[in-house]
Amino acid sequence: MRLLEERIQKEGKALSESVLKVDSFINHQVDPEFMEMLGKDFAEHFKDFGITKVFTIESSGIAPAMMVAKYLHVPMVILKKQTSKILNGNVYQTRITSFTKGTSYELTLFSDYISPDDRILLIDDFLANGEAATGASRLVEQSGAKLAGIGILIEKSFQNGRKRLEDAGYYVYSQARVSRLDAGVIEFLPEDEPTVAAQSE
Amino acid sequence: MRLLEERIQKEGKALSESVLKVDSFINHQVDPEFMEMLGKDFAEHFKDFGITKVFTIESSGIAPAMMVAKYLHVPMVILKKQTSKILNGNVYQTRITSFTKGTSYELTLFSDYISPDDRILLIDDFLANGEAATGASRLVEQSGAKLAGIGILIEKSFQNGRKRLEDAGYYVYSQARVSRLDAGVIEFLPEDEPTVAAQSE
Repeated sequence: MRLLEERIQKEGKALSESVLKVDSFINHQVDPEFMEMLGKDFAEHFKDFGITKVFTIESSGIAPAMMVAKYLHVPMVILKKQTSKILNGNVYQTRITSFTKGTSYELTLFSDYISPDDRILLIDDFLANGEAATGASRLVEQSGAKLAGIGILIEKSFQNGRKRLEDAGYYVYSQARVSRLDAGVIEFLPEDEPTVAAQSE
Repeated sequence: MRLLEERIQKEGKALSESVLKVDSFINHQVDPEFMEMLGKDFAEHFKDFGITKVFTIESSGIAPAMMVAKYLHVPMVILKKQTSKILNGNVYQTRITSFTKGTSYELTLFSDYISPDDRILLIDDFLANGEAATGASRLVEQSGAKLAGIGILIEKSFQNGRKRLEDAGYYVYSQARVSRLDAGVIEFLPEDEPTVAAQSE
């Protein structure tokens, strides 16, 4: 998605080979009209997938997911990060460990907000190793529903998240695919290229 | 705001004298079209306040704040809940203690996203004792900017948050003002009534 790539090139800050800051328009400060445009693009891309709910993981995915849900005319569900297990039977939970941040949490979904008939679209801001998205897929499957698609704003194509999700049978659409980062350097993969991770096997 | 009161009456769950669950359309599952309507109402209410940025606190305020920012044509900024102090000089931080939840966090704002010229509108889903909103007001004031208004979806008018904010000189607009909760009971204050807390002094 050319417009997202241009914005990342202009405002993003590559701090190292793995860290890309997009605080000024996605993560901390959010440009609502730009986010609406990204949401429309996802809705257009997934319009024939029969999506019944948009899921996201708190909190950076909420802004784009809201806009996708609005244009698909379906509810949005925020998967919560709990520090501990909830012991009553009305929730699905799965443990997520972020290697980057060195933290763990229980990704949590109240069972009221999913049913076996649902076809879920997961929206998140970043895809790196795919820990969070894989965890969300476990929650969806615990409920008997189908994870029909995954929409990502910024994919780090040099990490293995996309490959891991595709190997598990999921469909992934990323609006910007970053092939290389370095201090001051941000490079993108053309939209029709296979991932770097896939190429290097 | 009649439509929000009706939706709370229909889908909200009063669990006790202080706990109101609105998980099905605001906090966990979100109705994006309804949220857009609430956002439009806030934007209309605050259109002459000269707002330059909409602030919210992660994560339940993000969905409505996005919509307000969209209709006011200004950026939205998400105040982050950090577990610890950030020791470099580029942030404003203030400690928030939630008596309800028994937790504490450092409300955090990167200084890049506020300037002394800014007129801030703070949007949040709930107002009870006003701990979070008061913390946000401290951050805004640390930066030299002005907190020009506070917009709340659901005010618990039987708690002292509104009075506390008004006593500190802030303008508060709440879309629904809950005057009493009890198991199965939800009552509202008419829009032009003073708060219960103010009356009882």
